[in-house]
Amino acid sequence: MTTQMIILNGGSSSGKSGIVRCLQAELPEQWLAFGADSLIDAMPARMQTADGGIEISADGEVNIGADFRALEQAWAQGVVAMARAGARIIIDDIFLGGAASQQRWQKLLDGLDGLDGLDGLDGLDVLWVGVRCDSIVAAGREVARGDRVQGMAEAQADIVHEGVHYDLEVDTTHTESLTCARTIAAHVS
Amino acid sequence: MTTQMIILNGGSSSGKSGIVRCLQAELPEQWLAFGADSLIDAMPARMQTADGGIEISADGEVNIGADFRALEQAWAQGVVAMARAGARIIIDDIFLGGAASQQRWQKLLDGLDGLDGLDGLDGLDVLWVGVRCDSIVAAGREVARGDRVQGMAEAQADIVHEGVHYDLEVDTTHTESLTCARTIAAHVS
Amino acid sequence: MTTQMIILNGGSSSGKSGIVRCLQAELPEQWLAFGADSLIDAMPARMQTADGGIEISADGEVNIGADFRALEQAWAQGVVAMARAGARIIIDDIFLGGAASQQRWQKLLDGLDGLDGLDGLDGLDVLWVGVRCDSIVAAGREVARGDRVQGMAEAQADIVHEGVHYDLEVDTTHTESLTCARTIAAHVS
Amino acid sequence: MTTQMIILNGGSSSGKSGIVRCLQAELPEQWLAFGADSLIDAMPARMQTADGGIEISADGEVNIGADFRALEQAWAQGVVAMARAGARIIIDDIFLGGAASQQRWQKLLDGLDGLDGLDGLDGLDVLWVGVRCDSIVAAGREVARGDRVQGMAEAQADIVHEGVHYDLEVDTTHTESLTCARTIAAHVS
Repeated sequence: MTTQMIILNGGSSSGKSGIVRCLQAELPEQWLAFGADSLIDAMPARMQTADGGIEISADGEVNIGADFRALEQAWAQGVVAMARAGARIIIDDIFLGGAASQQRWQKLLDGLDGLDGLDGLDGLDVLWVGVRCDSIVAAGREVARGDRVQGMAEAQADIVHEGVHYDLEVDTTHTESLTCARTIAAHVS
Repeated sequence: MTTQMIILNGGSSSGKSGIVRCLQAELPEQWLAFGADSLIDAMPARMQTADGGIEISADGEVNIGADFRALEQAWAQGVVAMARAGARIIIDDIFLGGAASQQRWQKLLDGLDGLDGLDGLDGLDVLWVGVRCDSIVAAGREVARGDRVQGMAEAQADIVHEGVHYDLEVDTTHTESLTCARTIAAHVS
Repeated sequence: MTTQMIILNGGSSSGKSGIVRCLQAELPEQWLAFGADSLIDAMPARMQTADGGIEISADGEVNIGADFRALEQAWAQGVVAMARAGARIIIDDIFLGGAASQQRWQKLLDGLDGLDGLDGLDGLDVLWVGVRCDSIVAAGREVARGDRVQGMAEAQADIVHEGVHYDLEVDTTHTESLTCARTIAAHVS
Repeated sequence: MTTQMIILNGGSSSGKSGIVRCLQAELPEQWLAFGADSLIDAMPARMQTADGGIEISADGEVNIGADFRALEQAWAQGVVAMARAGARIIIDDIFLGGAASQQRWQKLLDGLDGLDGLDGLDGLDVLWVGVRCDSIVAAGREVARGDRVQGMAEAQADIVHEGVHYDLEVDTTHTESLTCARTIAAHVS
């Protein structure tokens, strides 16, 4: 079995992006990286202010609307299609819905989404990685970044992991990104 | 027929990105935008220095290696899959290979790529748009941006259009991005 | 006389930044560039949400508080000091107060600010440049940039020039940044 | 005595920027932050390729030319003038010259630079802070950032501190940015 996708899940400011860049540097093959940030960049700017889009309250609570969800679902299907076409893919996501978010990915990965032309495809070999960080530490790193609404790190630190199953977990509280990446890379086959 | 994808082709600094943002603002539906820049962002940083990646010489000539091409091809298949999954997609690309670059997209769009599970799908309805800009003007805008290797704009201004067929062309030399976007939007069905 | 500072004034999205980068590329000497954007970057992030800071309403109106003004005034004194120390300086500013904003700069430039140790210095040789852009065109470019609150361009297009005296004016409505920069460079002595 | 400036010195990727943003968030007053990165942003783009500018070799060695040094010196005088004008200033710098770099700042801070109009001013009250980071850890963080030439972190980790005197030192190897910032803030009077 050859790992075709690595899906990292963790709260805001838990250190996912740094781990992704280290993985891209450490892994001998060329891996493409996508995630919540690049998806938002691809959306119309008004998705951050309009009904149906993504709303971040002043205290860091995130609400996702129906238009956002629809685009995200089609985007995820496309990302899975890239992996089926032979590209190695790293995703960094924030499972705001916990186990339900993982199941949405799992259906696409299993080729059981009921869409014409995709049904019945072989499942992809995915490495599921939980990225944990103590909520107080993540909140401090949110301040140090300076480009995020304060409160997101703390609000998301635990709920994104509820009911989610991983192949391995890393914790950035006391471990550097590069070290976490090397631990993950050792599980890539 | 409903337009499912808009593919913009033009040289570096011809004004594609500004038109894309205006299209996303003007079109009533939510369109996802991807392109050459976001693809490069998704690649490992070493693709900009390693053999097989993308090499930009000091005078702005761009050479694309085999590893880059392989990732790009899988990425394009995934982007087409997003459109098949129902997302409206805008692509801004630089057809360094002219007509050959367009044909690579066309095969994917026609569902004739010979890949298991994708063959025989209906073709997608695509609006092909040429984005032209006088090479002297584009070279000046390259200076004004300040973040590009000088020479790319001039080197690419004409060759990217060689042998390419469009549904419509816009020219940013004397026309604003928003006006170009409105012309394009009028052709979206 | 040798030009020691170039001060560009124009509304948001009038094209100042592009002209500045072209000036830095065209002028034979090394010029340092500062402006409203780099000043805001230097301030604490909370200045964009706190009382006393800078507040941008949903329709693009900008309100400047006392804390912001105090930092801006000290910053301007420092920038003038850089010019006195021999650096050539380009400033791009937005004179929200029109003539009053220009007078604040003029006092510092004349060495008549009444501050210990600065009073009585020789005046600096400054080139004052107005950067105009039709408000409809500037509003369109604001959409094309995608990173600004809509409405700022239109709100500021005219008021920033009220009562301000210039050595020359350029208009980006139908003229490229590089051409405007060359016009300005021809006035630098 | 009231602290008027905080000067942080540390190698590339030692964590200075994160500490600066935390300091700006933690300190009750409004502090302006400048540093090596914002200085380079203010310079013409060609300073990164021209003789006399800043040259970063493929293995991360940095060479500074005469034109760069001249602009940097005038910039530093201006920053000190901002502090004299009443703004609280945080600097994050990389003392490539070790003790000699500190002495250049010290002369300006003492008002002993021999320049007309500045000589004989009172000295400023400065808090000197060393930001240390184990070179292996800093090199790993350089990979995780993804936007720096590999090798700078390791090359600079120790030499920037040679012969430099500090009021306090922090070490980001095992301590978070926010914690370091709070330690520094406790020394601000």
